[in-house]
Amino acid sequence: MSVSIIGTSHTEFGRLDKSIYDLVEETGKRALEDSKVDAEKIGGIWLGNFSAGGFNDQEHLAPYALNIDPELRFTPATRVENACASGSAAIREAKNALEAGEVDYALVIGAEKMTSLDTKGVTKVLAMASYWEEEGANGMTFPGLFAEYAKGYKKRYGFEEDELRENLAKIAAKNHQNALENPLAQMPWDCDYQEILDLPDDKNPMIAPPLRLYDCSLITDGAAALVLTRTDKAKKISDNSVEIASLVQTSDYLALDKRSNSEFVAGKKAIEKAYEEANISVDDLDFAEVHDCFTIAELLAYEALGLAEDGKGGEILGEGIVEVGGKTPVNASGGLKAKGHPVGATGVSMAVLAARQLMGNAIGHQIEGAKTGITFNIGGSAASNYALVFKK
Amino acid sequence: MSVSIIGTSHTEFGRLDKSIYDLVEETGKRALEDSKVDAEKIGGIWLGNFSAGGFNDQEHLAPYALNIDPELRFTPATRVENACASGSAAIREAKNALEAGEVDYALVIGAEKMTSLDTKGVTKVLAMASYWEEEGANGMTFPGLFAEYAKGYKKRYGFEEDELRENLAKIAAKNHQNALENPLAQMPWDCDYQEILDLPDDKNPMIAPPLRLYDCSLITDGAAALVLTRTDKAKKISDNSVEIASLVQTSDYLALDKRSNSEFVAGKKAIEKAYEEANISVDDLDFAEVHDCFTIAELLAYEALGLAEDGKGGEILGEGIVEVGGKTPVNASGGLKAKGHPVGATGVSMAVLAARQLMGNAIGHQIEGAKTGITFNIGGSAASNYALVFKK
Repeated sequence: MSVSIIGTSHTEFGRLDKSIYDLVEETGKRALEDSKVDAEKIGGIWLGNFSAGGFNDQEHLAPYALNIDPELRFTPATRVENACASGSAAIREAKNALEAGEVDYALVIGAEKMTSLDTKGVTKVLAMASYWEEEGANGMTFPGLFAEYAKGYKKRYGFEEDELRENLAKIAAKNHQNALENPLAQMPWDCDYQEILDLPDDKNPMIAPPLRLYDCSLITDGAAALVLTRTDKAKKISDNSVEIASLVQTSDYLALDKRSNSEFVAGKKAIEKAYEEANISVDDLDFAEVHDCFTIAELLAYEALGLAEDGKGGEILGEGIVEVGGKTPVNASGGLKAKGHPVGATGVSMAVLAARQLMGNAIGHQIEGAKTGITFNIGGSAASNYALVFKK
Repeated sequence: MSVSIIGTSHTEFGRLDKSIYDLVEETGKRALEDSKVDAEKIGGIWLGNFSAGGFNDQEHLAPYALNIDPELRFTPATRVENACASGSAAIREAKNALEAGEVDYALVIGAEKMTSLDTKGVTKVLAMASYWEEEGANGMTFPGLFAEYAKGYKKRYGFEEDELRENLAKIAAKNHQNALENPLAQMPWDCDYQEILDLPDDKNPMIAPPLRLYDCSLITDGAAALVLTRTDKAKKISDNSVEIASLVQTSDYLALDKRSNSEFVAGKKAIEKAYEEANISVDDLDFAEVHDCFTIAELLAYEALGLAEDGKGGEILGEGIVEVGGKTPVNASGGLKAKGHPVGATGVSMAVLAARQLMGNAIGHQIEGAKTGITFNIGGSAASNYALVFKK
């Protein structure tokens, strides 16, 4: 049994003059409207949110979603949290409820309001997604954790620093360029990778060596939402639904030092199983939206997806493979790097982007004739991993 | 289709010399051992936790559960949060995954470490479960919110303050007495209600009129865990499993001022539907574990359960109905009031208590011949509501 997407919504991403409450309410309302499903038919609401507690002093945010429509009163609403993969986690729980027959229609919302804190405050809240006792409490930040991946990758394959930096800059430039077409993106920028490499230190400071500011994704407010139903029902009520052909979660140890720092081991397992369950291979992918919280993460995602062999992720950059117009555009939306990364919303945002791509009304670049896509969303330093295959 | 409990564990409740990590790891390990299910068979882990972010600087706690056993590596682990009902919320998600066929065995853990903060800090973190923007941010605390219920109830039915206070003291005394038999309880106390009423102001200060200190539940560290499988499988592998015959969640508006302050409107709906789905009535209940975060909440729970008519919850106290030995003992364990209330663990704790009661190896008072019981767990000021019926 599978479930399908019959309604979507996606707010602008950026520094918004909207509260976390506004974000939940607005995006939920719009997804419902888009689905044309009566609110009274919604059997359950799942909210992906990382830390409204940390950012906005609001835990227990899910019941606020009842404000979306008077008919939603008494509808069970549940918050799901797995760091930056909270959005995908919420989709999984909704999918299970649908497949269990507990509900016939589900509303999934992902939302985060991050700009309520300054950069230092945001860094602290995000660090709570690390293994606090050994990582965050000792001053480890997320740029620091992903710098460990960059160093681990460089060391394992013997790259020179300049070589790695060039590839990371190519990823950043591609995503900023892709965001030019995305009207909801936070940081579209018409640049090439040499411009990024040439930025002076004060414009592109070292954050956690070898990662610089332009290797990092953004601090973002934003939300996205989906209405889901079982695929058999979706086909009856909609002529433009998109199937979630597979959704696989794998977890790994919270502490990065208990895992590889040069590949996404658990992420690879999730992706392999998602291909298998959807009965596809990497060659069938018309696009991918992947978790480029840092540029090194997109490089590792190429290898986890099987777009490149291990250690060769950088070789496919500029070869017309992952760029728009290539065989498998990656982050045609601009990705977390340029679209923005409201952490708990990101998994839902990716799913909305995939669905809209396959519905033929993409947010941003439309990949003509796309039939199959994947989203790859991670939480923490890849302790939580989700791969979702979407089919038209 | 239904699911059944085939393994349980429950830590001591109180101020423990254990971290949130210890609590998750120890209780999960013990439930697995108790179930005799190999760790490699566990298809998913759900963690109920309210705010390890607020209490322990640790969001994204679920993957830590992989440390329970090396065979759990890569098992999907997910945190679920609905305030003080996070434990029941985690059970629901596990149940759906089992019924959807996504997993065959599920591990559910509820855990909270609260004593890491002082009382002021705990009060602030708990207030994040209110509608922060209008309640918590304006100085409203949870004693304050439940004082609104006490005032609303008193006003609606025209009670004198003394009359209400006597009933609330009877509830407190009953639960402290019940806890005497519970070896894991935080605050057993051999008292009667007159002793509580006679406490001087400095021993039983007013917290939020009309609620005093002895109307409030405790600040507690603790955890509990369950292993679940589908009932058909449970019957094959265990001769002492307990069925979750129904599990119903209802949500209501986050803001108390949008709802009744004299009854649990959404809670009643959850309970009615849980009776219906389990094909029972209130008369079939051999016991109930209910959410006495404040004494007034237990009084309202009597009415929500149908043990008493609206406005008459106090009349059944002392009548041999809700006391141990009565027709339907309520909180034979001591309840949140005397057993303790590690908020995110509470729903799982209640389920463990219900299961152990029906398995015939109760934690605390054994109700002889018990065949059917209910747990009623709420989050926030009853914005999240869960009713679970258990059958032997």
